[in-house]
Amino acid sequence: MPKSTNRLKTNKHTSYLDYASSVSPNPSSIHSAGVEAREKLENARGVVARILSARPQEIIFTSGGTESNNIAIQGIVMGVGISKLPHIITTNIEHPSVLETFKLLAERNLARISIVPVEANGIVDPKKIRKEIKKNTVLVSVMYANNEIGTIQPIREIGKAIRHYKKHSKRNDIFFHTDAVQGANYLDLSVERLGVDLLTLSGSKIEGAGSPKTGVVGRVGVLYKKKSVPLVNIFGGGNQEWGLRPGTENLPEIIKFAAALQYAQKIKEKEAKRLTQLRDYFMNQLFHSNILTNFRMTINGDSKNRLPNNINITIPHIPSDLLVIELSVHGIMASSKSACKSGDGKASYVIRAINKNIKDTDGSLRFSLGRQTTKKDIDYTLKVLSKILLKLKKWYT
Amino acid sequence: MPKSTNRLKTNKHTSYLDYASSVSPNPSSIHSAGVEAREKLENARGVVARILSARPQEIIFTSGGTESNNIAIQGIVMGVGISKLPHIITTNIEHPSVLETFKLLAERNLARISIVPVEANGIVDPKKIRKEIKKNTVLVSVMYANNEIGTIQPIREIGKAIRHYKKHSKRNDIFFHTDAVQGANYLDLSVERLGVDLLTLSGSKIEGAGSPKTGVVGRVGVLYKKKSVPLVNIFGGGNQEWGLRPGTENLPEIIKFAAALQYAQKIKEKEAKRLTQLRDYFMNQLFHSNILTNFRMTINGDSKNRLPNNINITIPHIPSDLLVIELSVHGIMASSKSACKSGDGKASYVIRAINKNIKDTDGSLRFSLGRQTTKKDIDYTLKVLSKILLKLKKWYT
Repeated sequence: MPKSTNRLKTNKHTSYLDYASSVSPNPSSIHSAGVEAREKLENARGVVARILSARPQEIIFTSGGTESNNIAIQGIVMGVGISKLPHIITTNIEHPSVLETFKLLAERNLARISIVPVEANGIVDPKKIRKEIKKNTVLVSVMYANNEIGTIQPIREIGKAIRHYKKHSKRNDIFFHTDAVQGANYLDLSVERLGVDLLTLSGSKIEGAGSPKTGVVGRVGVLYKKKSVPLVNIFGGGNQEWGLRPGTENLPEIIKFAAALQYAQKIKEKEAKRLTQLRDYFMNQLFHSNILTNFRMTINGDSKNRLPNNINITIPHIPSDLLVIELSVHGIMASSKSACKSGDGKASYVIRAINKNIKDTDGSLRFSLGRQTTKKDIDYTLKVLSKILLKLKKWYT
Repeated sequence: MPKSTNRLKTNKHTSYLDYASSVSPNPSSIHSAGVEAREKLENARGVVARILSARPQEIIFTSGGTESNNIAIQGIVMGVGISKLPHIITTNIEHPSVLETFKLLAERNLARISIVPVEANGIVDPKKIRKEIKKNTVLVSVMYANNEIGTIQPIREIGKAIRHYKKHSKRNDIFFHTDAVQGANYLDLSVERLGVDLLTLSGSKIEGAGSPKTGVVGRVGVLYKKKSVPLVNIFGGGNQEWGLRPGTENLPEIIKFAAALQYAQKIKEKEAKRLTQLRDYFMNQLFHSNILTNFRMTINGDSKNRLPNNINITIPHIPSDLLVIELSVHGIMASSKSACKSGDGKASYVIRAINKNIKDTDGSLRFSLGRQTTKKDIDYTLKVLSKILLKLKKWYT
């Protein structure tokens, strides 16, 4: 029998005879355990809505960022239908869940796509987005902050450019989506101020509200969809989440997600300031220590307009996958590129987008900091990295 | 910092600087925390594969049964492409994640569909499935056991009929999928013996291996896909799960799922026997107690060839939603129909499929038993149900 609830405690005897619905209470059930689950779900939805300055009915809970992005992009395209081939626009450094979805729709002849290259600093020029808008454009999708190099995109300016186009062309059937997964801990999440119609969040990138052990949020995501956006469902199933994300809601993780997002918002400014200082200290040390300067390292992405917790460097001639493994031997968990694409021996598509001359053997090394990261971690990492580089230098340069 | 792992413990200092990948270790990361997560993931995959008599590379972890069914059905249809309109077959009592996906594909002109009606006992005739197979048929999807009325479908016989057709027509591009979500606790799960190419499981319908409190499995599902089945991805994203289900894997729930499925298999025969006795006792009492016989109740679905834990009855003239609410006041959690479709005031499509004369006001009442259910629960339920019916009789009949 599932964990008894307050309502159930009022009865001497309780019999849970709804195992076929779910072995734990299901928010779609009409019995009291279901009603109580529904209340908790709607409470969490209200919390998320307030943080985004949205309405509760504009919040769709999903299984994660990848699913949110697919529902947003494919849902807009499918709504237009395959008879009129819709056109959609994105950039060349989006997360694979956006970029590969665009390519998938193009390959299957379900959409035409434009992929706008970012500038050398890893930031897209809103004018270049504007230039790509055509009569059959129905969606622009630009990420809030990049997952590999941390660069923050000019979302408000792109939103303005789209609204300007809509006003002049008298069209209202073009929508703006942002993948805000990496920005959730540090950036402004007001959809009003950002001027977006659709926005993606993910639980796995938000640090829990409790201790590091209890606070981890499981696989859950959010898609904000402005009420007026005519998104159609890409899945067949039940009526959960207005039919846009059928399947029993992941209630325990949704509750944790809402609490974690609320806590992250509360400490956002303080934490962003603390991590910016740590990040800048890390980058300064990298470039001013005698040992490290010998390697002609470069910083990937704009050095100022980036997430407070992101450091991404290229060290020529030394394979970054090897660096990640050597660092992990010393207890330091870093990344060579998006974990979704790790281990294939090729330079990251994000790094290639901002540096045409990059070689596969150069690669890139990403350190992403979090709530538990201290100056001690950075100093230890700098010491270990110097040691590893000196050792590897003999073999690779 | 995430929970430290055994490997990490060998280092005096550990620094988790991979927050952007995930706040907890990500099986796609190449550092040691990622490698350890990957090992746990592959271990769980091996456990599930052995239970299904499948190979590990044939097991795809998803976010739940609804997603598994969508990936299977849409993935087969998309693989054929929109230029040749494929034909797919199912029954009229499938779970909404199958039936609504079929309708979605038909509405969007991505497939032609045949929906075969089941017989009055809630079981489909394999000959009627066979008769629907056409030259452009690419998929047959029939559920293993129904979620509302518990009837068990003749999966082996349907598999044989399809193989017979394939042999005679010299075709090998037609595939057989079963949604086995409701069967996982009680039925044979060997894909070899069942003769299926694709099979769906869901964590939320399997009781955990631990105590009721700790053992609940979260939102995770499985899709078995025979190696030779040319399924294409319906999501764009990373390479996780062979690209068929991109997005960071839900490792904590996958581990729980594998342990729960293993435990359910271990106790399957004993538990099926115990619940069959309870179920038959429940049904006998319903039909032989003096009070209850006055209501001309009917059992929905075959009385023998049904899940050991399922009782589904129609009580004419008394709204079943009201019965569910009245029962829940007495601490008994039952269901009027699939939770995914509850609360709309209409008779269930499953009940309508087996009883053309059913009225919306008749409805149906489902009791589904589980590991914690005892004879005491059944006796209490019978007593409470009698009391409620006597009260409601005055108003409704």
